[in-house]
Formats: sequence, C-alpha cells, structure tokens
Amino acid sequence: MEKDSEQMAETTNQQERDMESNSLHQPLLKRNLTLSSSPLALVGAKVSYIESLDYEINENDLFKHDWRSRSQAQVLQYIFLKWLLAFLVGLLTGLIATLINLAVENIAGYKLLAVVQYIDNKRYMMGFLYMTGVNFLLTLVATVLCVFFAPTAAGPGIPEIKAYLNGVDTPNMYGATTMFVKIVGSIGAVAAGLDLGKEGPLVHIGACIASLLGQGGPDDYRIKWRWIRYFNNDRDRRDIITCGASSGVCAAFRAPVGGVLFALEEVATWWRSALLWRTFFSTAVVVVVLRAFMEYCKDGACGLFGQGGLIMFDVGGVPVRYHVADLIPVTVIGIIGGVLGSLYNYLLHKVLRLYNLINAKGKLAKISLSLAVSLFTSACLYGLPFLASCTPCDPSLVDSECPSTGRMGNFKQFNCPKGHYNDLATLLLTTNDDAVRNIFSTNTPSEYRVFSLVIFFILYCILGLFTFGIAVPSGLFLPIILMGSAYGRLLGMAMGPYASIDQGLYAVLGAASLMAGSMRMTVSLCVIFLELTNNLLLLPITMLVLLISKSVGDCFNPSIYEIILELKGLPFLEAHPEPWMRNITVGELADVKPPVVTLSGIETVGRIVDVLRNTTHNGFAVVDSVGQVSEVHGLVLRAHLLLVLKKKWFLQERRRTEEWEVREKFTWVDVAERWGTIEEVAVTKEEMEMYVDLHPLTNSTPYTVVETMSVAKALVQFRQVGLRHMLVLPKYHGHGVPPVVGILTRQDLRAHNILSAFPHLEKSHTSKKGR
Amino acid sequence: MEKDSEQMAETTNQQERDMESNSLHQPLLKRNLTLSSSPLALVGAKVSYIESLDYEINENDLFKHDWRSRSQAQVLQYIFLKWLLAFLVGLLTGLIATLINLAVENIAGYKLLAVVQYIDNKRYMMGFLYMTGVNFLLTLVATVLCVFFAPTAAGPGIPEIKAYLNGVDTPNMYGATTMFVKIVGSIGAVAAGLDLGKEGPLVHIGACIASLLGQGGPDDYRIKWRWIRYFNNDRDRRDIITCGASSGVCAAFRAPVGGVLFALEEVATWWRSALLWRTFFSTAVVVVVLRAFMEYCKDGACGLFGQGGLIMFDVGGVPVRYHVADLIPVTVIGIIGGVLGSLYNYLLHKVLRLYNLINAKGKLAKISLSLAVSLFTSACLYGLPFLASCTPCDPSLVDSECPSTGRMGNFKQFNCPKGHYNDLATLLLTTNDDAVRNIFSTNTPSEYRVFSLVIFFILYCILGLFTFGIAVPSGLFLPIILMGSAYGRLLGMAMGPYASIDQGLYAVLGAASLMAGSMRMTVSLCVIFLELTNNLLLLPITMLVLLISKSVGDCFNPSIYEIILELKGLPFLEAHPEPWMRNITVGELADVKPPVVTLSGIETVGRIVDVLRNTTHNGFAVVDSVGQVSEVHGLVLRAHLLLVLKKKWFLQERRRTEEWEVREKFTWVDVAERWGTIEEVAVTKEEMEMYVDLHPLTNSTPYTVVETMSVAKALVQFRQVGLRHMLVLPKYHGHGVPPVVGILTRQDLRAHNILSAFPHLEKSHTSKKGR
Repeated sequence: MEKDSEQMAETTNQQERDMESNSLHQPLLKRNLTLSSSPLALVGAKVSYIESLDYEINENDLFKHDWRSRSQAQVLQYIFLKWLLAFLVGLLTGLIATLINLAVENIAGYKLLAVVQYIDNKRYMMGFLYMTGVNFLLTLVATVLCVFFAPTAAGPGIPEIKAYLNGVDTPNMYGATTMFVKIVGSIGAVAAGLDLGKEGPLVHIGACIASLLGQGGPDDYRIKWRWIRYFNNDRDRRDIITCGASSGVCAAFRAPVGGVLFALEEVATWWRSALLWRTFFSTAVVVVVLRAFMEYCKDGACGLFGQGGLIMFDVGGVPVRYHVADLIPVTVIGIIGGVLGSLYNYLLHKVLRLYNLINAKGKLAKISLSLAVSLFTSACLYGLPFLASCTPCDPSLVDSECPSTGRMGNFKQFNCPKGHYNDLATLLLTTNDDAVRNIFSTNTPSEYRVFSLVIFFILYCILGLFTFGIAVPSGLFLPIILMGSAYGRLLGMAMGPYASIDQGLYAVLGAASLMAGSMRMTVSLCVIFLELTNNLLLLPITMLVLLISKSVGDCFNPSIYEIILELKGLPFLEAHPEPWMRNITVGELADVKPPVVTLSGIETVGRIVDVLRNTTHNGFAVVDSVGQVSEVHGLVLRAHLLLVLKKKWFLQERRRTEEWEVREKFTWVDVAERWGTIEEVAVTKEEMEMYVDLHPLTNSTPYTVVETMSVAKALVQFRQVGLRHMLVLPKYHGHGVPPVVGILTRQDLRAHNILSAFPHLEKSHTSKKGR
Repeated sequence: MEKDSEQMAETTNQQERDMESNSLHQPLLKRNLTLSSSPLALVGAKVSYIESLDYEINENDLFKHDWRSRSQAQVLQYIFLKWLLAFLVGLLTGLIATLINLAVENIAGYKLLAVVQYIDNKRYMMGFLYMTGVNFLLTLVATVLCVFFAPTAAGPGIPEIKAYLNGVDTPNMYGATTMFVKIVGSIGAVAAGLDLGKEGPLVHIGACIASLLGQGGPDDYRIKWRWIRYFNNDRDRRDIITCGASSGVCAAFRAPVGGVLFALEEVATWWRSALLWRTFFSTAVVVVVLRAFMEYCKDGACGLFGQGGLIMFDVGGVPVRYHVADLIPVTVIGIIGGVLGSLYNYLLHKVLRLYNLINAKGKLAKISLSLAVSLFTSACLYGLPFLASCTPCDPSLVDSECPSTGRMGNFKQFNCPKGHYNDLATLLLTTNDDAVRNIFSTNTPSEYRVFSLVIFFILYCILGLFTFGIAVPSGLFLPIILMGSAYGRLLGMAMGPYASIDQGLYAVLGAASLMAGSMRMTVSLCVIFLELTNNLLLLPITMLVLLISKSVGDCFNPSIYEIILELKGLPFLEAHPEPWMRNITVGELADVKPPVVTLSGIETVGRIVDVLRNTTHNGFAVVDSVGQVSEVHGLVLRAHLLLVLKKKWFLQERRRTEEWEVREKFTWVDVAERWGTIEEVAVTKEEMEMYVDLHPLTNSTPYTVVETMSVAKALVQFRQVGLRHMLVLPKYHGHGVPPVVGILTRQDLRAHNILSAFPHLEKSHTSKKGR
C-alpha cells in the first residue's frame, strides 16, 4: 500500500506538471532534474494556486519603528483583545453548534415521527416515499449550496485546517459564504440521514468564525477597526484558528479537554503553553454555552432538542471489571481495528479518486452523485429492517420501554406485533447519534441478533465509503464510530459467557479501535472517548486498544487525513525529516532550481514590474553592490513590491530614502495587507524609468542557512521557526561568488519533490521514519 | 511582587558574580557593560557549574559517514529499541511506585494502628511518644540519606527536569544513587507524616529510570551494549526523560492522560506528536502495572496496601447539579485560589531563601532543620485534635461506620466516648492521602465543624510553607491539595442551604483552585483532577475555577516552578521573547561579550591546550585563512578537542587529513562521549609543537544568524531548534571584517543578563509578555 500511495502521489504530481507547463523558468528537457515547486493544490472542487504563510517576523524599517512606538497601553490592549477574541470564538461556536443540533434534531425527529406514524398504520409505501422524499430534498439543498456557492464547504475541512496551521494558505476556505453554506449544508446532510457526522464541519465552522473575527469581518464588508490591525498577520491568525478548531471539536463531542487535545495532536503544527491555555479558555466557554442551552431546553422549550444532557453516549453506569484474560479480546479488537482502519483508508482513497473523476465532469454530475447516494441510503435504512425478524420484549422491561414509542428508544416496534421489537429498525430508523446511543446500550446482552448487526456493519461499511466524498459538508468521526461499534459489539456477543466486559463497552472499544486505525490519534481520542462515554475505569483498556490499532494501522498506510492532504496536493511539512535528507545539502537543492532572482537595493520600476510579471515567486533577494563586491541586504516580499507600485512611491533619482519619507507614505497596516496581483497595477512608461528604494521595505534579517547544511537540518529550522522563504548563503565569499545561492520554499523541502529531482536518493530511502 | 522577584533574581545574580570573580576575560571595570554568562546554578545543596545540552545535529565528517553507513536493519532496530525503552520506563516506574505505596501504607498504617491502640487505652502520653519517635526516626533516615549521599534528591526535582528538557544539564541529577535515595527518602518522609507528597519525587524517579536506561546503566558500571550508542546523545535522552517524567505523574496520581499532559504543559519544552504517542505508551504500561498489583493485593496479600482501587479520591457517586447562581461561589473560589496561590508562592520563596541561609551553615544544620519540622508536625497532628470537641454520630449511619475503627474511615473516635467522633482527628491522625479522601467525602454535609476546618487550614498553611524546603524528597501537590480543600469545604459550608453543589465537591474545587493559583497549569490539572475524582460532570466548573485562579495568580507573580528555577539560577529559556528584545540586535550582544575565540582549521596542539585551559567556553569557531581572506569553517566542541588531545591524534606537519585517517582513529561512539576536563590531559612539550586537523571533527554547518537580527528573532530560532551555540555572522564581508562576530549561548539570551548589560532597555521593558 506504501507503493500505491506513492503511485497516487505520482499521478497528482503528473497533473500538477501538466498545469504548470506554461509557467516560467521550467526548461522542458531538464524536467527530471528540476525541483518542481508548483504551488497548486485541489481546493474545494478546482485546482488553485496556493500560497504559503509567513510566520517569520518581517524585520524591516517600518516594523521596527512601529514596535518602538507601541505604548504599554497598546500592548495591554492587544493582550485583552486576544482573550476577547478567544471568548467570542467560543461563544459563537457554542451558539452555532446549538443551532445546528437544534435544527437537525427537530427536522430529523419530526421526519422520523411521521414515518413511524405511517408504519404504525401499515402504510409502508407512503412511509418509504415520505422518508425518501424528505431526505432527497434535504440532500438537494445541501449539495446545491455546496456546488454553486462554496465548493470549499464540501467535506470535513480538517485537512485544510491542518495544512493552514502548517503554513499553507488555501483560498476561500475561511470566508463568510463558506461558513454559511457549511452550517446550512451540514444541517441538511445530517438531517437527511446520510452516513456522515457534523463533527468535521463543526471544526471547520469554528475555524471560519475565528478567521472572520480575527480579520474583522467578511472580506467584502471588512470592519476597519483600528485594533484589528494587530491581528492582521499570519501568526495571530494561526493562534486564533487553533482556538476555533478546538472549539469546534469541543462543540461536536461536548468534550472540552478532548477538543484541546485534538487540536494539539492532529491539527496544530506549532504549539506553546500560552496557546494551550487560550484554547482551553475557548473550549470552556463553548461547554458553558452548550450546558446553558441544554438546561434551558430540558423541558421541551426547543422542540425535540435537549434530551440527553452533556454526555453524549453515557455508559458510566456499568461497573467495569476485567482480568488478565480480558486482554485477549481487547488485543483482538485492537488488531481488527488497525487492519480495518487501514483498509478503510485504502479503499476510501480509491473511492475519492473515482469521485474526483466524476466531479470533474461538472456541477450536474456532482449533484446527481449526492442525490444517488441519498436515495440509496434512504432505501437501505427503510428497507433493510424488513429483513430482520421480530424479537419478543424482555418481560422484565416495563411496557413503556419495549417496544419504545416515538422517536428515540432502544426497542423500535416497526412492523412487529405488540410486545415485540425489530432490532435492525432500532439501529437504522433513527438519527446517527441515536444509533450510536442504541448500539452502545449497556446491560442489554440479548438485545441484538447477530444477523442484524452483520447487516448493519456491512451497510455502514458501504455507506461510509461512498458517502464521504460527495459534495456536502461531511465529517468522518460518526461513520467510523458506527462501523467500529458494530464489529465491537459482534465480538462482545461472540465472547458470550466468557466475557466479563459488557457488550455495550465492547461496542465502545470497537469504535475507538477503528478511529485509531483510521485517524491514528491516541491521546486526544482517548480523552474524547472518556468525555463521550463517562467511564473512567474503561480508560486503561481504551488506551491499550488505541495503541494497538494505531501501531497496526501504521504498518500499512498513513492516516486518513494525511492521505487526503496528499490527494489534494497540499504541501504539508512533516515534523521529522526523512533519513536520506541527511545525504543531500541545501546547496545541491538550490543548484537544480532556476537561478535566484535578485533585485538591487535601489531598483528601477521597470525591472520590478518585469520581475513580478515574469515570475511567480513571492520573495526576492535584495542585493547591494558596493564596487565589485555585492552583499545581500535581505528579502523583499512580492506583496510589498506591489504595495510600492500601487502607491507609486517612486524616486526621480537613484538615492537612499530617509526614514520619515517612508513613514509618511506607508503605515504598518498597509504593510500587513495583501495587495492583489501585478495585473491590477498600471505603470506609465515614464514611471518605468524611475527608481524605488527597496531598503526600508526589505526584511533585513531573513533566516539563513549555509549551502553546505544538510536538508534534514535545514528542514528542522524551516519548520520549527515557521518560515516561508529560507535564504541559502554561500560557504565562502569572494569575487565572483553570488551573495545568495538560492531561496528555498516549502515546496523545495518536500520529500516527494526532492526525490523526483534526485532519484538516486531513493535507493537509500527507508520507508519508515525514525519515530 | 514582580519587583520582589526581580530583587531576588538580583541577589542570586550577585552571588553568581561573586563566584565568578576569578573566571577569565571578565574585566572588572567593564562589568556593567559585560554580559554575565556564568554557567553556575544551585544544584542540590551546592553551587555547581552547569552545562547546556546540544540538541543540534552535529554535522561533521564522522557523523556523515556514520549516517551513510547505517543500514535499514539498524534503523528498524533503533525504532524498536526506542519503544522497548519506553516500555521499560513505564514498567519500572510502575513497579517502583507500587513499592513506594506499599511501603508507605504499611509503615504509616501500622504506626497509626498502634497509636490508635494507645489512645483507646487512654495512654495518651505513650501514644504521643510513640508517634513522635517513629516519625523522628523516619525523618532522620530520609534526611541523612539526602544530606550525605545525594543532595540532589532533596525537593521535588521537577524544576530541574523542566530545565533539563529546556536544555540545561545539571550534574548528578539522574544517577543511580540519587534515585535510590529518592525512593527510600520519599518512603521515609511520607510515612513520617510530614506535609509533603510522593508526586514530585515520583516524577524525578521516573526521569532517573529513563536516564539510566537510556545510557545503559549507572555511570560507574555502564553497560557498553552496542545498541546503546544510538541513545547516547542529548536528543534521544530528552525524549526518554520526557517519557519518564510523565510515567512518574501517571504513577503518582494513577492518571495516565494527566501524566502525558503534565509533561506536555509544564515540563517539556519541545514536543512533537510522535513523542506524545510514545509517552502515552509509557503511561499506559504504568497504569496496567498499577492495576495488576491492586488486583493482586485486593484481598490483603500486601498488608495494609491495596484498598481504594484505581481512582484515588473518588467523588463520582454524587450527581452534579448546578445553575447559573452557582457560578458566583465558583468564581469566588477561583479568585481566592488565585490570591492564596500567589501569596503562597511569595511566602514559600521567602522561606526557601531563609532555608538556603540555614542550609549553608552545614550538614548538621540541615538535619536539625528537618528533625525540628518533623517534631513540630508530629506534635500538631497529635495534639490539635484534643482541642476539638466530640460530635455525636449521625444516627442514620451503622455502628461500624461511626465511629470508625482501625486506620481508615471518616469518623475517628480518638478521645471521644462511644457513639461520638472527633472530626479533627479524622483529618489529622491519618495519612495525607486518607486526609484528602476524608475531606473530599461527599453526602456528609454536617461531618466537620467550622472550628476544626479552620484549625486544619491554618496548620497546613504553616506546614506547607515550612516543610517543602527541608532536605528530604518532597512534592508540592499534596500539601497544596490539603490546603485548598480546607478552604473549599469551608466555603461550601458557608454557602450552606444556598449551595446546590455538595460540600465534598467544594473541597475538590478548592484544591483545584489553589493548584492553579500556585502552579498555573490548566489542561493537565483539569485532566488530573478528572482522573483523580472520576466526576465528569464537574468538568465545566473545574475548568472555570482553574482559568480564574490562573489568571488571578498571573497578575501577581510567576508559577512556583518558575520561582524555584529562578532561585536556583537555572538558565531557563522562555518560549516568548520579551517585547524589548526587538530593540536590540545580536550584534550588539556580541559586542559586549569578550572577543570570540577562534581556532585555525589546522591548529597547533599548544594553542588548543592553551585555549582549553584559559577559557570555559564549550564551543570554538574554526576559521580557515586563505591568503588574506578568512572564512568560517564551523564550530568545534570542547568535548571533541579533548577527545583529540586524549587520543593524541597529532600530525607532524600542517596538512589536511583524509577521511580514512579519521575513521581509523575515531568511532561515532567516541564522538558522543563526554571526555572529562582539560586537567586530565597530559601533553608533552614536543607534542605541543605538533598540529591537529580540526576539519573532520568540526560541525561544518552550525546554525547561524546575521548580526543585524534582533534578539527576539534569534531567540525564537535558538529555542525552537534547541541550540547550544549560535554563530553570529557579519552582515558585510570584506577585508578586515572578522568572519565570525560572536558566539551566543543560552546565558547570553536570557532577559535578565541582557538587561544587566543594557539597562536602558529596562525603561521600555513591559512587565507583561504578549501572551
């Protein structure tokens, strides 16, 4: 499977190459020896140019002046606002999560109540038509919104957030439209009974809220508050988006600590304990908001929403007793989880590639695909319970418990006579959340038949594979929990009298094992499951199951999020350099790149325009020549060159400017903005002859490495410090030696790109990283 | 208090300066303008030279060759061994924690049973003498061991581990003697009823186990296994010590997830998700070991040990109901916790300084101090309950519950008539763990009188301040929990009928608030309390309390661990640069340091010996001169120069060596060793005239910065990449410009040291960091 993943990446790369054929400085013949550094990736539905983020402090004259002039009051204000933003992120995420839950539970609840009504009256066909119709309409709304208004809202959004926090900016991911479509689409898709969860979308929604708050409003109607200027940089946005992502997880699972840990383990690349604390504050706000609404809605003030309480799938009531012998089934569950999880990753990857082909056929194809999945799902959910036979109720249960009436409950009557229940209907004819609750139900050892659970498992394997890729907001957590709990419970039943652990707990362990087998998280999953199920005594065996599943899964393929990142072509930088990266130096890398583009400290406007038009680089080395010796002054960003051109800060003669001249023209806010593209700039012919003093706008202290440094070592610096450009300096200075050997970016340091330029490294390439 | 902390640091620094007066290159007159970079700190009882750790990959010829020659099998072996070590660390920590618990509960238990026996027979004086005598002896054993055999075993050890993981090596911290003394001393001190916990010591023990395993045995009898060589570097030792520290916390609180998070939030400086996973594995092993022993000991096979189960202070049985109105007392607890916590930090700091003066008087003074504290503690624990009046038992309780007989139980009879109990004896005449259990007891609203709780609180405030600094292994967690729970429960009683939260839960919240107020952790404390008390529904209010306490405490002074770090003079690097660091460049820093010591690429033996004898630097720039131009080749470590001198790898003539010559002489293992001091090297007069080719041993790619970079930016790189030396290069090269401007170390980048050399920065110094 390792090989397959390689091959897939090859294909993606092939596509990238095709798209870049018209880009500059890419000699056709030298291709195999050139580092492909094309900034293209699949964002939403289409291939877009992506940019890297810059977490480096851009130390130019303007910045330095700004820092010197900041007063103590401004610093305190900044700190206060950081916390205010964290509070608002938590508050809004909590409110929107409540809104989504409220909408889903009411829509799906009343739909199911009507269906149950039809069935009670034996009008089976009408029930089927009603359910299918409603689901069809709900899916239609979700998919049309996604396809026409915000293609980036489809899917979970977690891989893109992960990439963002690693330093990859994807366009249109955190806009107001995306957020709106994600909210409505998620309500529609989940209420339509599709096999997907609202967890991933909630994480994305949390990140959108954070991003919108951080930049002071949606792009078009941006509120230009003075204080927002402090947050208009990549570093602060990264922090606030981390808060948003954890708030999302917290809201999805009502798991505040799990949310923080999820952001820490899976999503974030950089971390420090101050951020841990702020994230924790956001999730605390979320959980207080959720709890307040539940308190308020408890007595039916919110329709069908509000039952259940803060713990979603409570299995806290069961005493957990286990002995050494129980370690055997626990190990078995762990191994099954690892194998099935990696198999799921493998198959899902195949399906997603197939879906990419279908989606490429146009918007109608996408919508049809979603609707087909919806019809299939409805048919299965409604039709399959007819295959199951009726079970008489346990006489120890009171009448109101079995068969259960209404929307919830563990013993659905469906087509059965009085005093009997249909166990498959209990699992299928309900919302996904309730299905999990029912399959986790404890102290009910003979509730489900093997036949029903097998059908349930197979159905959700199929649905889990084919639902995820359709054009609606979808999360992966719930489908995996459903699949995993089925085989967990089956194993518990197979253990029968030998098991001292309750069947419901087996279902929990099964769900945990498949999660770890597919997503490869440990600590955060452990805490999320603890907070979901409220059973602390289960913790030691949950830990074992998670560790075994993750280890087994890691033998086969990477985690599902990494697969999706790779599939989308997002240039994610791993924490650990590959061992063979020690055998190649950054100088060798720089050699196979096109020669570095340098600008003079005082440059003509014409040359700047020319360079901006004819390259796609985002950073240029600024070199001062004094006599015959040329020395590097620093690095200037494309955005700042565009700023100069737009503001027409041109000089008649070739001279250095004074500090006041610059400060008069530009403010710190200008420098933080993004200034569009070169195509929007109009420069007259006379202006082309004029000069620009680049010194004040140049970052005079970019992080640098010497050309003899190994790529492994340079990568550590690049990732740890959070760079966008890294200047490679020559080892020895002297006449004729260029002062800058090259500029390396994120793309240049990716293992795959290096290997395609230096195939001989492959033979020393060991597939295992030194974890 | 900010000012006081400053002043204290000043004093520490003054001491440092006095000690360094005889060091080199420190002109007396220029002192105020010189960066004080004295590597001195208080380790155990005496001021020692400390070294920095080197997490950088030392890329020299030998290293490169070693990497190229590593086979795939060796890489796999390395990974396997990493996991094996993590397993062994968990296993041994679990075993030793069980051993400590078993010893403490049996010693303290039988002691208390005997005391109760005396009291039942009204032989009060004998009871007092017996208890005081036993406690005296136990304290004597603990303190004598600490004072004579391992001074580094006194105290918690957590600050030193924190400093180690930040990159500061303290001598004699992780040896076999230290570990042994820590184990025995901890048993003695805890069993003696002193107001200290076994939590901090267990963290240190875990780190010792990890360190000893990682280096293949104690220093004197080191097992020279071939595979150990892979771990004989600072990077791998850091990882394994992180595992050890979390295993220790896990073993102390039986909190596997809390242990991982504690290591993450409080102890570790660098972190990556692969390490998170390995740490999690270690703690899972610990918890399985603990559980297995508890299962085994449940039926009395281990004496008095084994009651209680995996959850230490279970309050899971109480339903948690709370409304908006309950937020007020919760806020009050949080604020009180923050104020008292910072007050505690302030006072403890004063006491520790006083104790430092006493301890300086000699070993006898130290031992007397410990014994005096022991006598005072025994007298209070035994005598104070006589002040409390007897309470009649609640008639709803059965006879066996009240008054409780034996060692444990919530209603101690003490001197009371039958059918009555002494509530203060319940809290005092017991082990610390049981005292916490008793004060956390739920559904017992009228168990304690206000008078008793006030006495309890005052007593533990006094003991908590005066016990921590004595020369025995001591932890801070339990004293703080005891203090906090007292005022928490008092507040709960004051709320009386208005409170809808149980008094026991108030006690839990009080303990949490004081912890956060003093230690300033959030997420890890939250999880530890969750795992300690098994009440998930308490989570949201625990989070609020923790956040409020930490915020309030942060207004006054830093966390207790930071205070201890500062007091000991350990050069800890904070994650966040101070704002004023943007206004000073690394070039300015390098200017006020003594000129950088450079060696030629091919250097005479005499010069090397001279440089090693006359400086204390650990790294030297190697400069090649080609004609008039001199270029920097890299950085050579003191350890490698000593290696060359010891192995006498001298050349007769000034020439470059071939790669095989070096490989013949040195192996990778030699390079990883530490090679003693220059005093141990004997070089003859003829040899002094010979040459050494430093090129193959020089790290040819040290991380570098340009002199114009701000200290803030350089600090980010220094800390994130984990450097020991950072080379400062000139901005412009040319004739007469030295190729290296300076070498910065950890000490040079510490805020306090910079401020003492550049006092004018102070005025722009804002006390708040941009958190």
